[in-house]
Amino acid sequence: MVTIRHAQPADYGRVIQHVNAWWGGREMAPMLPQLFFVHFEGTSFVAENDAGELVGFLVGFQSQTQPTEAYVHFVGVAPRERGSGLGRALYERFADVVQGHGCTTVRCVTSPANEASVAFHTKLGFEVDRVAEDYDGPGEDRVLLVRRL
Amino acid sequence: MVTIRHAQPADYGRVIQHVNAWWGGREMAPMLPQLFFVHFEGTSFVAENDAGELVGFLVGFQSQTQPTEAYVHFVGVAPRERGSGLGRALYERFADVVQGHGCTTVRCVTSPANEASVAFHTKLGFEVDRVAEDYDGPGEDRVLLVRRL
Repeated sequence: MVTIRHAQPADYGRVIQHVNAWWGGREMAPMLPQLFFVHFEGTSFVAENDAGELVGFLVGFQSQTQPTEAYVHFVGVAPRERGSGLGRALYERFADVVQGHGCTTVRCVTSPANEASVAFHTKLGFEVDRVAEDYDGPGEDRVLLVRRL
Repeated sequence: MVTIRHAQPADYGRVIQHVNAWWGGREMAPMLPQLFFVHFEGTSFVAENDAGELVGFLVGFQSQTQPTEAYVHFVGVAPRERGSGLGRALYERFADVVQGHGCTTVRCVTSPANEASVAFHTKLGFEVDRVAEDYDGPGEDRVLLVRRL
């Protein structure tokens, strides 16, 4: 049994411990400062198993430029839980909350090299908006994904 | 003459070009993905001189957990503009906007090693809330600063 609940600042330390490992050893932690856990609790979630172990999380927010849009900054699932539907369940919890705030689209970006991420998002109903060169800095191309709610 | 205006996604490339250099060669770019320029335009600013060159910027937002709080994620001033009052001017523009949204406090965090940053914020009326070990991950201690508006 996996339980999904809102993330809190106290969850940050546990999440950040796992992030680099869950991303196959890439150095991801600098992209996920604690501010997301402090200021976007209502649209961020952690998932725990019966033993209380962290098995997934999602960090997102409502756009303040365009309040009908929501953005998912990070979603992660423990390697041993992949294929269980937990990623989808986290996205659905997020979608329910932001729809309640009036959002009609969800956006996210991923690396073109991360084919598993592009495939995962496509299965969830995301479409590729465009692929943008140097989107997150020199050499940091990104696939821009969008899903209508 | 320096002009301050709202940041836009199109400003991102120019800002990110300068960030590492302005921070003394530290690798800061991964901490400032383009999402902040896309989703927090109304509370983010760039400053340009008469020649149209970027001389400063501030990236911030209103907390969605606690809407009476605002958070400044990044503020940067070109080395040749330091001491001109531009950092203060950027903070004042930000404070004006977030006060209009009902915010009564501004928070930010900085590295304890960055004594110039702590001194700068103290001069602007920030107080040290606390120093938190491993705040942004293992070995990433932070000074938590707060200013009442």
